[in-house]
Amino acid sequence: MGTVVRLNKGKDSAKAPPSPSIDALHALVTDDLREVNSVILERMKSPVALIQQLAGHIIASGGKRLRPMLTLGAAKMCGYTGRRHVSLAACIEFIHTATLLHDDVVDDSDMRRGNATANSLWDNEPSVLVGDFLFSRAFQLSVADGSLKVLDILATTSAVLAEGEVMQLLTSKDTTTSEAAYLEVITAKTATLFAAACRLGAIVAERPAVEEEALENFGLNLGIAYQLVDDALDYAAVEATLGKSVGDDFREGKITLPVVLSFRRGDADARAFLRRTMEEGEQTPEDFAQMLALMERHDALADTLKRARHYGAVARDALGIFPDGPAKSGLVEVVDFCIERSH
Amino acid sequence: MGTVVRLNKGKDSAKAPPSPSIDALHALVTDDLREVNSVILERMKSPVALIQQLAGHIIASGGKRLRPMLTLGAAKMCGYTGRRHVSLAACIEFIHTATLLHDDVVDDSDMRRGNATANSLWDNEPSVLVGDFLFSRAFQLSVADGSLKVLDILATTSAVLAEGEVMQLLTSKDTTTSEAAYLEVITAKTATLFAAACRLGAIVAERPAVEEEALENFGLNLGIAYQLVDDALDYAAVEATLGKSVGDDFREGKITLPVVLSFRRGDADARAFLRRTMEEGEQTPEDFAQMLALMERHDALADTLKRARHYGAVARDALGIFPDGPAKSGLVEVVDFCIERSH
Repeated sequence: MGTVVRLNKGKDSAKAPPSPSIDALHALVTDDLREVNSVILERMKSPVALIQQLAGHIIASGGKRLRPMLTLGAAKMCGYTGRRHVSLAACIEFIHTATLLHDDVVDDSDMRRGNATANSLWDNEPSVLVGDFLFSRAFQLSVADGSLKVLDILATTSAVLAEGEVMQLLTSKDTTTSEAAYLEVITAKTATLFAAACRLGAIVAERPAVEEEALENFGLNLGIAYQLVDDALDYAAVEATLGKSVGDDFREGKITLPVVLSFRRGDADARAFLRRTMEEGEQTPEDFAQMLALMERHDALADTLKRARHYGAVARDALGIFPDGPAKSGLVEVVDFCIERSH
Repeated sequence: MGTVVRLNKGKDSAKAPPSPSIDALHALVTDDLREVNSVILERMKSPVALIQQLAGHIIASGGKRLRPMLTLGAAKMCGYTGRRHVSLAACIEFIHTATLLHDDVVDDSDMRRGNATANSLWDNEPSVLVGDFLFSRAFQLSVADGSLKVLDILATTSAVLAEGEVMQLLTSKDTTTSEAAYLEVITAKTATLFAAACRLGAIVAERPAVEEEALENFGLNLGIAYQLVDDALDYAAVEATLGKSVGDDFREGKITLPVVLSFRRGDADARAFLRRTMEEGEQTPEDFAQMLALMERHDALADTLKRARHYGAVARDALGIFPDGPAKSGLVEVVDFCIERSH
């Protein structure tokens, strides 16, 4: 399981700048993010102790808070000085967390962010129900914000998210899934929430539609890039860094872009191998290594990252209309981080 | 399994009026209800075929549409002549349906309303995700209504509902659950949605707070009565009429009021029996008959219905401030129906 494929072999290795990180954006929004965390803790409360325990477990388990940070950063870039972005960022994190809880039930996952998943600790039932609770809390937070436009965006985002999850279930184990179909899945299940998170920054600042759209497109493309890198990391990262088991997607027969590319580029033997291991779920202990070799042979991981870079580039350009400054730099660095991250 | 306990033995069997039904209310709101069904079918649509299939299965599977009928009936009683009640009634049904899908996953149920459950046909994963989708659709419908007051009520209702479901999970298999704790569970998981459904009727009609509150209390008490009768029926109904397997609650170790009463009134042997069968889940084929005998001995079913009648009476009185008329009569008959129904 410790196999490491060099993900950045396609890059120019002559220049070696410091690794991009989300630290700059984090530093910029650190006070707001502290407030977001307070809102999360406050709104997580329930007279039902198990809800707080289970929600607390997943919320406190060291996520990057990337999505709420995007809302905060976007609002800052738009010159917003009010407080609405704080509760809306919390709202985005609640929607995300609810999705994670239901995801882990659907995928039957044991590990998330280096910790045991809620469903593995408390079983599936409370995970489903606490997910519903967190989703309702997100609903409440957005109602408290009071803007019908914001409510409309969040309600639509939630519906698309759920559609994306169901689409993913349908493409799961289907090795003939096309790249286009796969992109549709990750756009719905991952990128739409990134897009909403960013767009909210322009909305609270009451910026013109063109900036709202720019931030939405920034988030959408960033989200796709983020997911593609995630897919590659599931085959290539060092287990301890990733915080989840490498090879999970393979073991679950989850069709991601590296698999789609391997299937389309592979010969009859390769396709038979993918059908056996991923569609029929018949795997031997040697199969994961063989999968990595297959992907290496067809540049499936390297090209998944190339695709990610494409979406990253589009995301960067979407921010072009905003004046330069620390918030814009911070957001751009998030793109670089998402693409070059090893975890 | 065909054991039938006479539920109405406590009643005066001399007078035998025609059985109360929801037909009068149904006739009164039949046009509106047809529109509600159109909205439901329209908003159930999704490019993802499985969502429509699965949602269609549960939505079309012959539910009584009791909750949306309450919204429509309440609006009518309040003299409302607009159209908002239609989409809000659909919204209530979507929330209810989402809950049913998640409920069946949590309970691992095979039968619902005489049909196979979605989770037994399609497995748990899509049931969880399509539940999320329907909940998001409810969220969208309420946003389209555009009233922050309505949104606030529905968001809070959803959160309380989820809390109630988690509470039920915690009391499940706990034979020491008190009557008060059990009432808290069913108030949250069942009655709150009835209360919101009724209250919305007064809100769209812009009636004064006192009428809003009256309808809320009507719904709340009706919902409690409804759930208590449901609990009794799970031990006493004729299987074919109930549309779900009699004895499900017993087999699942689900603690309901008949069990609470049996445990509190029973001797050491009875308590040991309840602990073995419901807490530890060790059941022999003869145990269900023994359970029925235990409940008969302690009037557990008859007294559960007595409690239901109490809440029904409170519900009826809550409507006292409204002028007499067909809508009020229809709503009052729903109370009678809920208490005297055999299914």
